[in-house]
Amino acid sequence: MPRSKIVVDTEEPPASGRARLLEATSQVMRAADSLEVPLSDIAAKAGLNAALVRYYFGGKDGLLRALLERDAGASLAELDHLLEMDIRPSKKLRYHLAGLIGTYYNFPYLSRLMIKLLHEGSEEERQRIADRFLKPIARAYEVIVAEGKAIGEFRNIDPKLLYFNVIGTCDHLFSSSVSLKYCYGITEVDDALKRQYIDQVVTIFLKGVLVDGA
Amino acid sequence: MPRSKIVVDTEEPPASGRARLLEATSQVMRAADSLEVPLSDIAAKAGLNAALVRYYFGGKDGLLRALLERDAGASLAELDHLLEMDIRPSKKLRYHLAGLIGTYYNFPYLSRLMIKLLHEGSEEERQRIADRFLKPIARAYEVIVAEGKAIGEFRNIDPKLLYFNVIGTCDHLFSSSVSLKYCYGITEVDDALKRQYIDQVVTIFLKGVLVDGA
Repeated sequence: MPRSKIVVDTEEPPASGRARLLEATSQVMRAADSLEVPLSDIAAKAGLNAALVRYYFGGKDGLLRALLERDAGASLAELDHLLEMDIRPSKKLRYHLAGLIGTYYNFPYLSRLMIKLLHEGSEEERQRIADRFLKPIARAYEVIVAEGKAIGEFRNIDPKLLYFNVIGTCDHLFSSSVSLKYCYGITEVDDALKRQYIDQVVTIFLKGVLVDGA
Repeated sequence: MPRSKIVVDTEEPPASGRARLLEATSQVMRAADSLEVPLSDIAAKAGLNAALVRYYFGGKDGLLRALLERDAGASLAELDHLLEMDIRPSKKLRYHLAGLIGTYYNFPYLSRLMIKLLHEGSEEERQRIADRFLKPIARAYEVIVAEGKAIGEFRNIDPKLLYFNVIGTCDHLFSSSVSLKYCYGITEVDDALKRQYIDQVVTIFLKGVLVDGA
């Protein structure tokens, strides 16, 4: 029996070349703790020819933008869903903080990738990235803070600055994991540390944002 | 009168080549909002030959390490001083937060520079950077949190995670100022915005870290 028969018989269809290149990029960036990874490493990890990056994505920039969409898209949909829910603003903030840290845990390069893509390409392309990935988060903070103030649950917090407070806090354990290594001797953010981080961030932000005694 | 006479007569001595290269690097990085700046731009800004970078610093790596020392050294000395002061832990945290945001306001590339240098060079060099610039901050958080818990002023906060909470929050407005531009149309963090940011960060962290009613 020829070997190829075995592959054809597997029940799960093999991932498309496009999906394999995206997943390989994600894994290589995570392992390198860096966005500056050579296409040859990505292609080798995917087991595909590097020329396919041009075929599927038009080039490395397109690959990186597609990875941002793959990794951040689901979180944006969840955020939309969260805004619709009939729960207190404090609970929305709590779920959002936990979800955001979970997203950075899965994709520790994500915040850096966003900033990199806002620095590169045409002015139009940068604005498109911001409109697609930043503005929905910014709008969510405006809605949650406005709701929280309206029912007297939140103190007088500026939602624009809250954006930077929250993203910075939730991301830094991941984008600065090299500090965790050289300062504390911890070489990996594992699930237990992630949960501990969520607990502390939720405590600080809920106490910090809610009026006393809320 | 020859022109050179005028220079000789000025009361302030001209900055050394070393100091001029450091200041030029700082200005070029700030203007580019990036660490990836060519030596030729730095030399042009300093009005000096790029070969002097090798003479004074041994190369670009040495230049970057010297800039980190120039920019972070004073803040570390202030932190030492703060620890010695006979004030409540909550006040130490408040002063530290304001000082840190002030440092990032002056040197918006500083946190990124630190992370970059922890990724580069020999293992020994990376550890030296961490020992010099990270561990004093980590130790300060341990001391302040221990003092705060001992007198019942702080809740049960983990100082190691507080490090990432604080650095991430204080830095993000500066390392992600490109988000401020494309998301909010604000092209510069001016003094008023910096003060507003300090107020909000101090509020969130003091309410977040202190026990209720402290």
